[in-house]
Amino acid sequence: MRTPFHVYDTTLRDGAQQEGMNLSVTDKLAIAEQLDELGVGFIEGGWPGAVPKDTDFFARAAKELTLRNAVLAAFGATRRAGTRAGDDPQVRALLDAETPVVTLVAKSDVRHVERALRTTREENLAMIRDTVEFLTREGRRVVVDAEHFFDGYRFDADYTLWAARAALDAGAEVVCLCDTNGGMIPTWVSRIVGEVVEAVGGPAVVGTVDDDGRPAGPALGMHAHNDSGCAVANTLAAVEAGVTHVQGCVNGYGERTGNADLIAVTANLQLKLGMELVPEDGLREATRIAHAISEITNISPFARQPYVGQSAFTHKAGLHASAIRVDPDLYQHMDPKDVGNDMRMLVSDMAGRASVELKGRELGFDLSDRKDVLARVTDRVKHDEARGYTYEAADASFELVLRDELGELPRYFETQSWRTIVETVPDGHTPADVYGPEAEAFAEATVKITVGGERIVATGEGNGPVDALDHAVRQALTSAYPELRRFELIDFKVRILDTDQGTDARTRVLVETADGERSWSTVGVGPNVIEAAWEAVTGAYVYGLIKAGVSPAE
Amino acid sequence: MRTPFHVYDTTLRDGAQQEGMNLSVTDKLAIAEQLDELGVGFIEGGWPGAVPKDTDFFARAAKELTLRNAVLAAFGATRRAGTRAGDDPQVRALLDAETPVVTLVAKSDVRHVERALRTTREENLAMIRDTVEFLTREGRRVVVDAEHFFDGYRFDADYTLWAARAALDAGAEVVCLCDTNGGMIPTWVSRIVGEVVEAVGGPAVVGTVDDDGRPAGPALGMHAHNDSGCAVANTLAAVEAGVTHVQGCVNGYGERTGNADLIAVTANLQLKLGMELVPEDGLREATRIAHAISEITNISPFARQPYVGQSAFTHKAGLHASAIRVDPDLYQHMDPKDVGNDMRMLVSDMAGRASVELKGRELGFDLSDRKDVLARVTDRVKHDEARGYTYEAADASFELVLRDELGELPRYFETQSWRTIVETVPDGHTPADVYGPEAEAFAEATVKITVGGERIVATGEGNGPVDALDHAVRQALTSAYPELRRFELIDFKVRILDTDQGTDARTRVLVETADGERSWSTVGVGPNVIEAAWEAVTGAYVYGLIKAGVSPAE
Repeated sequence: MRTPFHVYDTTLRDGAQQEGMNLSVTDKLAIAEQLDELGVGFIEGGWPGAVPKDTDFFARAAKELTLRNAVLAAFGATRRAGTRAGDDPQVRALLDAETPVVTLVAKSDVRHVERALRTTREENLAMIRDTVEFLTREGRRVVVDAEHFFDGYRFDADYTLWAARAALDAGAEVVCLCDTNGGMIPTWVSRIVGEVVEAVGGPAVVGTVDDDGRPAGPALGMHAHNDSGCAVANTLAAVEAGVTHVQGCVNGYGERTGNADLIAVTANLQLKLGMELVPEDGLREATRIAHAISEITNISPFARQPYVGQSAFTHKAGLHASAIRVDPDLYQHMDPKDVGNDMRMLVSDMAGRASVELKGRELGFDLSDRKDVLARVTDRVKHDEARGYTYEAADASFELVLRDELGELPRYFETQSWRTIVETVPDGHTPADVYGPEAEAFAEATVKITVGGERIVATGEGNGPVDALDHAVRQALTSAYPELRRFELIDFKVRILDTDQGTDARTRVLVETADGERSWSTVGVGPNVIEAAWEAVTGAYVYGLIKAGVSPAE
Repeated sequence: MRTPFHVYDTTLRDGAQQEGMNLSVTDKLAIAEQLDELGVGFIEGGWPGAVPKDTDFFARAAKELTLRNAVLAAFGATRRAGTRAGDDPQVRALLDAETPVVTLVAKSDVRHVERALRTTREENLAMIRDTVEFLTREGRRVVVDAEHFFDGYRFDADYTLWAARAALDAGAEVVCLCDTNGGMIPTWVSRIVGEVVEAVGGPAVVGTVDDDGRPAGPALGMHAHNDSGCAVANTLAAVEAGVTHVQGCVNGYGERTGNADLIAVTANLQLKLGMELVPEDGLREATRIAHAISEITNISPFARQPYVGQSAFTHKAGLHASAIRVDPDLYQHMDPKDVGNDMRMLVSDMAGRASVELKGRELGFDLSDRKDVLARVTDRVKHDEARGYTYEAADASFELVLRDELGELPRYFETQSWRTIVETVPDGHTPADVYGPEAEAFAEATVKITVGGERIVATGEGNGPVDALDHAVRQALTSAYPELRRFELIDFKVRILDTDQGTDARTRVLVETADGERSWSTVGVGPNVIEAAWEAVTGAYVYGLIKAGVSPAE
């Protein structure tokens, strides 16, 4: 007998409860494709019937999605009190979604039965039994999410067990124990899951299949939220206690503090505990997939996210740079390639030549026999960082420094001067009142630039001085370099350095620019935000033009 | 015998390793004050001697910080191989910091001893022993951070235990077991800590004190990183296995995926496991403190952060809205007030009238019988905060709103308009070359202001547009309000909101102003940094004039 293991994703249903998330049907289809590439076994698509968009999702998914690894699950609730399952339109909508799997949320905490659902203990058990029986008779595989299971178990263990047994006896393939409020810690989960496994049939039976692949007994699952900061660990604890079905969301999305981060859960189980849950080549794409999904949800990725975050394998070089280079295994808990991530070295003011060389190699420059360049770049980085630059957050600027010292920095244009003007007018006026109907804003910038021997004077408007400068530069350069049209400033960060000096302080600007395929970061430092932004923005354009293979205008 | 428990914060040292974090000495002092308010027992301030800024921190901390709950710890390394501890300048610098506690990082993984430190197993043990003995003889309490302990233990348990024993035998108060690579999971931590507790003296001795408060035996500690997503849970597992010293960082800051989130660890231990670690009223300020610290670090708070995140107790209303309102305990793992957070329903918004009333009282305004004002202020705060204002970091601006709604806001001046110009000139020129010998900078601002019926046009120069505006306003107002001469802008912070929109984003500016006796904070929000700064700076002047008891010019 072998143990099948369910990796069950609920990004499209429970993850979508996150503050600020608003997914279209097209978004959901695109995310489902990514989840399938990751290799999850189940994709919960939404609540058909209750949420019109979700009804559409299942209709379009049936036609448009070709899944290699996953099956779709429709989510809904047990029948209403006092009805028959087959007569409940909400239950019928679950059938209409035509998914192989239906997941039912069921009450298992007696306080929720009585105070929120306002029905009797007995009727709730009947609701579970009837709905599961009805759906299994209709050929569906049924998962029951036992809501508030852990809180319920601590209050009245017997009733939660009756709810679990009602589901399993009626033919549910899995009863998933939900820490709906997210307040558990691993030792509590461990104890409770252990007791439930015993109560429903023992660890030898739970979640195993016979030689024909049919369930030889009931399976238990775990659905964790991160309110105590332990969602991933609680899920591991449940698996170690006998659970064979784990639910979670990519990027840990979800209401409040979010659901268990499904990639961290899967990576821990597969890479640390040796379980085989998703195809190896799926896990090797995890970083790309996690970022692709954050592009779709339009929620900025969290740099410190375990395994797939941009900083997850990032080291501030300093003292240990040479040791890390020789022996990366001593400084990493696993090989970042196994989740498609990379080790990154931050070039910081503690940077020695070793870390500059390493960083150069990461960017494709072999400096091992260029000691002179290495020394000059290291000195320049130290000098710049003492003045407030931070190359650790601006790889593209670092590459420009490197290219400059190697004599490989193209001169696309020369700046003669620039000027910005920002002004207000008395209350109640709009830019259009002052500057005429075409006017957009009160900020205006003029740049004087030489491109290929030609002097260009261009003026731009914007909602602020940096925006206006950006528009002016684009206007000046686009005819010589039409590639600039594809560049877009997607992030802009300002930091005042040495804040003791108030408005006299130096300013650092970090800019992230994208061209539709990739993005890059540049840094600028100056006595004010505009000079700093000018350096960062023009650096971004130079870098983008280099990467686009553009030659300087003659 | 009772068990003392150490809550040991390393935000200022290990947290500062985070990508993108760059703290000034003033930032560090401000963070230390917040940590002390939270009630941690130990604040690790940095590495004196190795990092010049940290040497300054300890010097200024001795003069400027008055801590109620915490003691300071200086961090450093064991002596170099082949020297005497007292002759090692790095060790002497630790004494010079004059902190009651010194924390030494020591190698305990034999592979790191041989491959990174490149010394012998025996010499490493001698380095630990000598350095601890030297420092304890000098009257310091010594914590030893056993680096890479868990990886080392899994490779060669005996050597890690020798390293721990060397430290304890030499008089270390705590040996802190570090999961430096962050790859542990709770069951591994549980097993290893349990074995170490047995090996160094058993759970009855570890971390207990006699009736005089002296350690009755050695204590073990836990230092976790979040690479497997289990830092908080690993720390809990270590405590449950006998550890009585926990290290972590506020907001989970730190290199790679960050350190254990110290607030989540403390809240779990105190609120769920019933331990008494920090004063109750400190924990009740945790949310405010966590956010204040992210203002200082200028790293955006993570909305889903357990306990203190903006979304941590936020419910998408929907089906359960009324049930949640009636019975919040059924839907929350704990009372958010215990960590100073609030339940939020996403349909309504955050600031309730109760908190506005409370805040008003704090500022000296009794609004209990002014329901109309309370309602208007609450609405205005909600509206403003939705647009990016943050009154929690700008008490003075909040007071201005309150006074405005009470009809008690003096009109010191009326702004007609302002304009700023920033420009460059070709390389190699100075402002003096261009504008003549009196010229200071390339930024210039003109303001048109009415004071007491008189219209004033004034121009100021500065090193940037905000500085120039500040000089222009002062010039315009000082003859009517000479008190302005005492006001000084001492801090200036910029945050771009909605960063997905690049240079089109809205900008928030926080300004701190001082008059030699007190300081106050104001906020401004606008489509660009200059408009936002104008609002914050003029607000600061109005507030300062009110507090100086000045009447508007007639």
